[in-house]
Order: sequence, then structure tokens, then C-alpha cells
Amino acid sequence: VVAAPAALIGIDWGTSTARAYRFDVGGNVVGERSAPLGVQKVEAGRFRAALETLLGGEIPAGSPLLACGMIGSRQGWVEVPYLDCPADLTAIAAALAKVSDPALAIVPGLMCRDADGVPDVMRGEETQILGALQEASSRQAVVLPGTHSKWVLAAESGIETFATFMTGELYAVLREHSILGRLAAAGSDPGAFERGVRSSLVSRVGLSHELFSARTLALTDALASAGVADYLSGLLIGAEVAAGRRWLESRAADSLRMTLVGEAMLCSRYRRAFAFAGVDADIGPSDAAARGLWRIAQRARMVP
Amino acid sequence: VVAAPAALIGIDWGTSTARAYRFDVGGNVVGERSAPLGVQKVEAGRFRAALETLLGGEIPAGSPLLACGMIGSRQGWVEVPYLDCPADLTAIAAALAKVSDPALAIVPGLMCRDADGVPDVMRGEETQILGALQEASSRQAVVLPGTHSKWVLAAESGIETFATFMTGELYAVLREHSILGRLAAAGSDPGAFERGVRSSLVSRVGLSHELFSARTLALTDALASAGVADYLSGLLIGAEVAAGRRWLESRAADSLRMTLVGEAMLCSRYRRAFAFAGVDADIGPSDAAARGLWRIAQRARMVP
Repeated sequence: VVAAPAALIGIDWGTSTARAYRFDVGGNVVGERSAPLGVQKVEAGRFRAALETLLGGEIPAGSPLLACGMIGSRQGWVEVPYLDCPADLTAIAAALAKVSDPALAIVPGLMCRDADGVPDVMRGEETQILGALQEASSRQAVVLPGTHSKWVLAAESGIETFATFMTGELYAVLREHSILGRLAAAGSDPGAFERGVRSSLVSRVGLSHELFSARTLALTDALASAGVADYLSGLLIGAEVAAGRRWLESRAADSLRMTLVGEAMLCSRYRRAFAFAGVDADIGPSDAAARGLWRIAQRARMVP
Repeated sequence: VVAAPAALIGIDWGTSTARAYRFDVGGNVVGERSAPLGVQKVEAGRFRAALETLLGGEIPAGSPLLACGMIGSRQGWVEVPYLDCPADLTAIAAALAKVSDPALAIVPGLMCRDADGVPDVMRGEETQILGALQEASSRQAVVLPGTHSKWVLAAESGIETFATFMTGELYAVLREHSILGRLAAAGSDPGAFERGVRSSLVSRVGLSHELFSARTLALTDALASAGVADYLSGLLIGAEVAAGRRWLESRAADSLRMTLVGEAMLCSRYRRAFAFAGVDADIGPSDAAARGLWRIAQRARMVP
């Protein structure tokens, strides 16, 4: 018995990892594979070979292919121009870029501009957002925590605007390369995380001042070295929550329902930080990228 | 003719560099030597040898020795407890720690606490401040830019309180280890610096969001790669100026005279940033550390 070809193969192709989903005609994920073959790890010109490896050796004939993420960046397979916000599902589905061998469509990233005209960009998160919002219809805030966290205003009809916060990258460079990282011992300390979040939430000065408290509290034995990393994480996430809420206020959106989308542990960490700020946040579906790929493929008539 | 022994040998002994000053009986610097023998570069137990090298081969007999800076830290020659703020010249001079071989006195660092009891610390800057303020008598703000910038409220009588901003260290780790640094090409661009400062000064969101604009502006060719480093520097210094002014406001000190103390190029960079914020700042004496060492030695009766 030969299995029917997949109705769609969707690929969430990021900077460090690529993940492929095999869908049946009902839009259900019936198979999933991932590989450390992100855009940063594949040489230019080698994306076809990487895709073959990701899919288990060969690219199956008869299944449409749709990818999202950094695969559409300047360092990716083909550079797909950013689509301007607001951008709805129809506009995104109409702007797919095409690779001809194999026949692969790529979801465009999105660009928005703030009141001063400064651009902000995303690639891949637009697909997760569309996947997370399938059931929702009214304006709401979606937060996708990560290396470059995205705060997004969206509705069922599409993405209105967004703002990026470099929280995860700041944590990584400070943890690995700064005097604060050198004070940190291995360990986890939920109390230190909470203390960091609360410090940033009430800060009357600013992040570059608050960060130094990780050093002075450790120096005066008011913070154990095993708590330094979680305290630092708390300071940075707390600063993001405070700044993100100011951003929502500037958009008259601070009373909207909030949904966290992303990796489960990180979403739960952010949810705790939101709770310290008195904000309830839902956690969205963990398969948002797959749902978004299916939804875009439907609108683009790549699937029934 | 044998030269008279120096009235004082003062040493500004920091993390990476040590600098020695030879004073005559009038408190004038008549000789100066420096060496890359900062505390981080000298093994424990080897400080006497490092001092001999710094002073040109031997430690001269008959001259009192006074040092300030990280040499009094846990990683230094002896750990000198922090003195609590407010701390005036007399209290600092009374709290010198003593090394017996050779007879060397070390200036204590200072500690203060904010309204929530969170400590802040300095070592070395207290001496520069006392040196910069010799002529002044009224309450004023002193800013010492650097790896860990210090904003200080002080008067002729001593140091009231202060706050640290990790501006220089954030710049270094982001420049060397982040995605922003990878976008930067060699070059200097005063216009990009100004743009960064102004962005941070008017930011309604927060630093971790503003930082991402270095990436998006470069990506959209709205910022040349040769300007990325100066733009990043501007964002960070602008954020410090905005945060430091909030800190001064919280101390009812935002209308005080401001003085910048430190390395000439960096002070001039900060003065420009202050000007964009509509604030005039004086630049203090470039020999503030030497002046402060002399002043402390006088008060401690180590010199006539």
C-alpha cells in the first residue's frame, strides 16, 4: 500500500532550525520532522539539499510545499520582500514568493513603521500569529517571546502593527560576555526571577541602571550566585513587559486580551511576569506555526 | 644632586591599568607613569612586584603612598570595606586601609542605597569626584562616563549619593557579540550618533525596543553600515542621559549644574548628547584623580 501524497508539506524554517509538517487533506498534522538546518547553518546554494535531508532523503512529488521564516531573508533561499502592515491573510497569501525547483512557496515577512517612520520587521512570526488567531475575531495583543520578542496587535483579519524587543539576545550576551554573567553560578531560583521582574516593573530610572543591581546585590550577598541568572532574566523580561505595555498604551490597546505564543517553558515564564504586573495572559496553541502554514496555503488555494 | 623624595606618590589603580603620580610639596604633579598592570592583570600576591614595575623598578623610600580604585576590591591587594554614603572628605580620609609592606594606604570605595534598599557601589570614582570638586561649594551633579557610568550628587563637602549605568559594557557586548555588531562596518558617523541619541531621548517605549532599530534601519538601507556603531553608541548614551535625568528628578536635582569627569573624548561625546537633551554640561579637570589623591592625602595628614 502506497500512502497518499501529503495534502501539504509546511516548513517553519528559521535561523538555526528547520521543522517540516506533513498535513492530510483535513489540515491535520500527520507527521513532523526537524533538523538543525537553519538558514545560518546552510551554505548559499545548498538549500535544496538541506530540504531533501529535512524531508528524509527526497522531496516527495505531488505535495505542495510552503515555507515561512528566515528562509525568505537575504541569507535564505530567495529574498522575499517584506509586506507592509497592516497585512491580512489574503494579502499575505497573495504575496507568496516562488522557488521553481522544487516548486516551493515562501511566506513574506512583514514590515511596519512607528510614528517616527522607524521600521520594524518580522519573518516567521506572521505565520504563527495567523495560526494562533484562527478562532479569534476581535482586536487583541499577541506576544511571541524569544531572542527578538514580538508584541503584535492583530485580529482574525490580519496583523495591524508590532514592535520588537531584544530581550533574549540581551540576556544571552550579558550572560555569556558581561561582568554580570561572570557572577552567575549554575542554578535556577524562581524567587530571584520574581525579584528581577518586580524591580524592572517599578523602575523609575531605566534598564541600564537596573542591570547593575545584579552585580551589587551579589557583591553584598543579598543575592546568591545561583540566583543571578534568573534575576537577570527577570530584570530583562520585566523591562520588556513594562515597555510593551507602554507601547500598547500608545496604541490605545492596553486593555486588550493578551495571548502568548511560542515555546511552552518560555511562555510560562512570561505568563508569570505578566501576573506580577497584574495582567492575565492566555497561552496560545503550541502548534501555531503549523496552523498558520495550513491557513495561508488554503487562502492561496494550494490546498483544497 | 639627588632629587628630594616625592611628597606623595598617588596611584589610580583600576581594573586594567595602573597610573602613578609623583607630587611635589605644593601638590603639583611632577611625574607620571602608567602600566597595563590593572587588578585583573596581576596575580594575587604579586601586587608588590607590580607596584615596583609601575614605579620604574623600585619603591622609593621616604615618599608616602596612596592608592585608589579596584586595588581595594576583593580581587585587589586588600579588600577595603565600602564606606556608606553620604561620605565627606574627612570620613573618606579617616577610613583609609593600610598595607604594611610597603606602607601603602588605600582609599575606600563608596556604597549607597536607593529608596528600595538596593545598593550601588563605586571604587576610584570617589577620588576623581573629590578632585573635580575642589573649587566648588554647592550641591551639583557629576557624571563620570565609562564602562559603568556613575551619576553622582555631590558638594565640596563630599558625596551624597549616586547611580550606576552599564552603558559602556552594554555597548561592548552588543558591538562584539550581537546581531547589531555584525551589521556594523568600521567607521565613524557623527550624524548617526546624533540620530541614536535623539531616538532614545524621545523613546516612548524602552531601550530593548530602540536597540532593534539599529538592525531595521541598516536592513532597509536607512542607516549605512559605517554608521551602525555610532548609532548604537548614541542609542545607549541617549538612554543613559534620559534615565540619569529621571534619577536626578527623583532626587529633586534636575536643575543642578552638571560636570562631566573622565577621558576627554568620551566627555566630549557625552557633552554632545547632553546638548541634544537641552542640557549644558561643563567638562571637569582632566587630572581629577591626581587632585583627589592629593586632597585625601592632605586630609589624612599624609602630606604637609
